[in-house]
Amino acid sequence: MTRGKFITLEGGEGAGKSTQARLLADALQAAGYEVVVTREPGGTPGAEAIRHLLLDPQGTAWSLRSEALLFAAARANHVETLIRPALERGAIVVCDRYIDSTRAYQGGEGRLPDAEIMAIHRLGTEGFMPHLTLLVEVDPATVTARLALRDAEGSDRIGGRDADFHAKVARRFAAIAATEPERVAVIDGNGSAQTVHVAVLAAVRARLGLTV
Amino acid sequence: MTRGKFITLEGGEGAGKSTQARLLADALQAAGYEVVVTREPGGTPGAEAIRHLLLDPQGTAWSLRSEALLFAAARANHVETLIRPALERGAIVVCDRYIDSTRAYQGGEGRLPDAEIMAIHRLGTEGFMPHLTLLVEVDPATVTARLALRDAEGSDRIGGRDADFHAKVARRFAAIAATEPERVAVIDGNGSAQTVHVAVLAAVRARLGLTV
Repeated sequence: MTRGKFITLEGGEGAGKSTQARLLADALQAAGYEVVVTREPGGTPGAEAIRHLLLDPQGTAWSLRSEALLFAAARANHVETLIRPALERGAIVVCDRYIDSTRAYQGGEGRLPDAEIMAIHRLGTEGFMPHLTLLVEVDPATVTARLALRDAEGSDRIGGRDADFHAKVARRFAAIAATEPERVAVIDGNGSAQTVHVAVLAAVRARLGLTV
Repeated sequence: MTRGKFITLEGGEGAGKSTQARLLADALQAAGYEVVVTREPGGTPGAEAIRHLLLDPQGTAWSLRSEALLFAAARANHVETLIRPALERGAIVVCDRYIDSTRAYQGGEGRLPDAEIMAIHRLGTEGFMPHLTLLVEVDPATVTARLALRDAEGSDRIGGRDADFHAKVARRFAAIAATEPERVAVIDGNGSAQTVHVAVLAAVRARLGLTV
């Protein structure tokens, strides 16, 4: 169906996902692969416009349901216009956040049932899933330290939540990894960027058979 | 559960829905009811922001799936923050377009299956439906004449479609009315605004028992 590979990076704020996405893309490119790096929410002009609606600290206080539908609409646009075409021409797509973030942030523990979130995902993208998801896990202390640094530079709505919320999100991500071990590789994100990068490359080689 | 009544007006472009919504609201208000008049897409600041994304002629060419999800997100916000609260305090809500428009414009004849659209609606609003829907039907010739007049004043993306598309939409609306006759009253919209208004009032009295 598609010749390329679709790799997503997931995890809470301060896990180092964006850095790891960039390092992984550089390594794959150096190894001769065509690589497309993208992120969610956003990734296409339409999806970025929705991202803006979602993350604007002055904007509407969206309910979980509205939020989940907006993320799904953005994701549908992202998959249709950027991810699928790239995969069809054989590229490797590295995406910072995807459906698992919706499941972890809008789902679980009194929020939306996972089955409802996955139903919306089926409607938006026909249930399009990554070939490999790298879940970058970091200790709460590391997160707190990294976010304190980032908050000094200003924070968006999702980044501005408390430690309890971050712990909840981490538990949801871990639960997804436990349920779908074939798709999700858990990466220890506590070390230096370079140490984590080595673990990421090992997972990409082992899981997808790429020579990188 | 709710004490108020939720009335929607549906139909294609040029059917006279907005005029009829206004006339109905005025009549109900004159009869002593608290009335909230609203419209979709839009109706709340958040939903209006989504409306803007959807109808911008310079914007993204959204797929049917993205469109349906965006309409659902806007509708969820509209129901949560405006329609439900108004109904709970006993008001009559008159809404220009609602879920049936999504079913008629994004659904049917090679577009999204009605079951999928209704599934998204359940996720967004827990399947919140009107107490009464007034489907205003007009002959294609009347529509063409009215839209020609309106196009002279500029057109948005949905209004700019062709006669074939409008006929398809009209068939979908008629099919919904045939399937849900308890909820949907078909109103002949070909006469003058005042003639149609009389028919609207008759339906509201007969179906909801309101004294207007």
